[in-house]
Amino acid sequence: MVDQYNGYYKGKNVLITGGLGFIGSNLAIRLVDLGSSVMIVDNKLETSGGNEFNIEPIKHDVHVNYLNICDKTSLRQLVRNKHIVFHLAAQMSHTLGLKDQKPDIENNIIGTVTLLECCKEENNGVKLVYTGSRGQYGEALRLPVDEDHPRNPIGSHEISKNDAEDYARFYHRRLGLDVVLTRLSNVYGPRSQIKSPEFGVANWFVGLALRYEPIPLMGDSCEGYGIKKRDFLYVDDCVDALLLLASKKEAIGHVYNIGNDEPSNFRAVAEIISDYTRASIKHVTWSKERKLLEPGDFYPDISKIRNLGWSPRVPLEEGIRNTVEFLKLNKDHYW
Amino acid sequence: MVDQYNGYYKGKNVLITGGLGFIGSNLAIRLVDLGSSVMIVDNKLETSGGNEFNIEPIKHDVHVNYLNICDKTSLRQLVRNKHIVFHLAAQMSHTLGLKDQKPDIENNIIGTVTLLECCKEENNGVKLVYTGSRGQYGEALRLPVDEDHPRNPIGSHEISKNDAEDYARFYHRRLGLDVVLTRLSNVYGPRSQIKSPEFGVANWFVGLALRYEPIPLMGDSCEGYGIKKRDFLYVDDCVDALLLLASKKEAIGHVYNIGNDEPSNFRAVAEIISDYTRASIKHVTWSKERKLLEPGDFYPDISKIRNLGWSPRVPLEEGIRNTVEFLKLNKDHYW
Repeated sequence: MVDQYNGYYKGKNVLITGGLGFIGSNLAIRLVDLGSSVMIVDNKLETSGGNEFNIEPIKHDVHVNYLNICDKTSLRQLVRNKHIVFHLAAQMSHTLGLKDQKPDIENNIIGTVTLLECCKEENNGVKLVYTGSRGQYGEALRLPVDEDHPRNPIGSHEISKNDAEDYARFYHRRLGLDVVLTRLSNVYGPRSQIKSPEFGVANWFVGLALRYEPIPLMGDSCEGYGIKKRDFLYVDDCVDALLLLASKKEAIGHVYNIGNDEPSNFRAVAEIISDYTRASIKHVTWSKERKLLEPGDFYPDISKIRNLGWSPRVPLEEGIRNTVEFLKLNKDHYW
Repeated sequence: MVDQYNGYYKGKNVLITGGLGFIGSNLAIRLVDLGSSVMIVDNKLETSGGNEFNIEPIKHDVHVNYLNICDKTSLRQLVRNKHIVFHLAAQMSHTLGLKDQKPDIENNIIGTVTLLECCKEENNGVKLVYTGSRGQYGEALRLPVDEDHPRNPIGSHEISKNDAEDYARFYHRRLGLDVVLTRLSNVYGPRSQIKSPEFGVANWFVGLALRYEPIPLMGDSCEGYGIKKRDFLYVDDCVDALLLLASKKEAIGHVYNIGNDEPSNFRAVAEIISDYTRASIKHVTWSKERKLLEPGDFYPDISKIRNLGWSPRVPLEEGIRNTVEFLKLNKDHYW
């Protein structure tokens, strides 16, 4: 692949927390290709997407250190001599928090603060990229949603990711750490878990199709099914966005939406998958309770990162096809 | 005093976390007066304002249970049979977080979530009033600051208070608990700590005056000293606002600014104190670093709570005079 970062990553020491997970492993593979020395920290938390098969193509080129990022004594050893830290480790379940919010607080808030502390104390010159979520905005009060949109996260996972972002910004503004903040939309593509919708609905849809199960579209007879506006971003585009931001000095201290400003919807995703796999689609009427929790239409304003020279490049059809092909070959490793 | 709540609080079982502190103790005294049965939970955390002298007038009328609110096993015993919980317990230092954010996360986030869990599990019919801070807004993007203003908290204390508010809202929206949310401005008056500006600058100014130390006004020769716009609210008004909100069914699930929409500034406060005490005032030039952290002018839009029938009643002069008189009589207990 072309190195659009002009050698920036060649010889760089890079730490990826959550590097066995979906986005982290795709990032690790790209960084190895760009000539970085990559260390992965991951504890294969059950509610994250950690999977050794994700790094199969680079297993001899990366160092994997199994570790809970709340283990400060150990983590401080690992942040030394790193040029860049991509922080992707997180408790990812959106429903776990309905029963117990402590895993979100522990992994997402305390874990992030522990990592920030280690960077500050052991390697104050490091650059850290924090990956938050579009869920931090909650319901869209206006569309597209720009970075100044109020943040009213609804679920426990999103509340914790939002708090961790505030702490990362705090480490930049008050403690002088070089931090870049991001809020990711619905990222899909190879190497995601497909067992449940917790790890991205688009990926889950592909998994259902490959298991010959119908793809469910939520809705009701008035408004239709699967037609809420959403944006979907192919993981390679997401990786490119993270790499671009980490390479730009002017991104430090700022927050960027990483998503797709051409909105689509779940129906479109399901239909593309159905075209490739002949999967059937079923309509599911929202329960009263589920409808109350539905956050409505969403797509982001990405002009801020566009101005730095990034834009989504992989069309939905191509991205879905790649995902289907990858999972057809490797499905045993993902369910 | 007149019971403007028409007997609502008579016979009610009320739990006040942080009830030995500044606002909590003033609230407890008023509730005893209104005929409530009051239990206080407090652990006299060093960085809170807990002080047994605060409840001297009602010491035979309230039950004090010393407890860290993260102690769920014990706390769950105490929320049973309560009609209302006022949650005021918090780590209050704004500067501690510069060195260590864990006390904010532990006391303010995990403490609040533990209390919410106990209420949900043991007493789902209880009404809980959460007390947040105007610091949750960060810099004012517009004035006055209404409740829909984006929340960009700057310091660790404020970040943690903001996160706890999101968790309290989560318990309302997703888990069905009756929660009322508040964001308090600069509250001053009797029963506050006066050892440091951590517990409110207005109170600290009074303390300095009574120790015959000059009152410092920050600024520089260009813009003047002590002239940033701020609102100050006398503690009795704050207590009235909390009591009104807890008595109104329509307040459940909503967030209210509790402050003063007639802005003043630190110079005005210092001059009133100086009039009563003959304290001197000194001008202090901001350090470059301090100036960067200055959040600028702030005063809240309080029309939302005004619409429920509350407004600030105690003028700044009267409030300051009361504070000075209280501390003249009782200063041994406050430093």
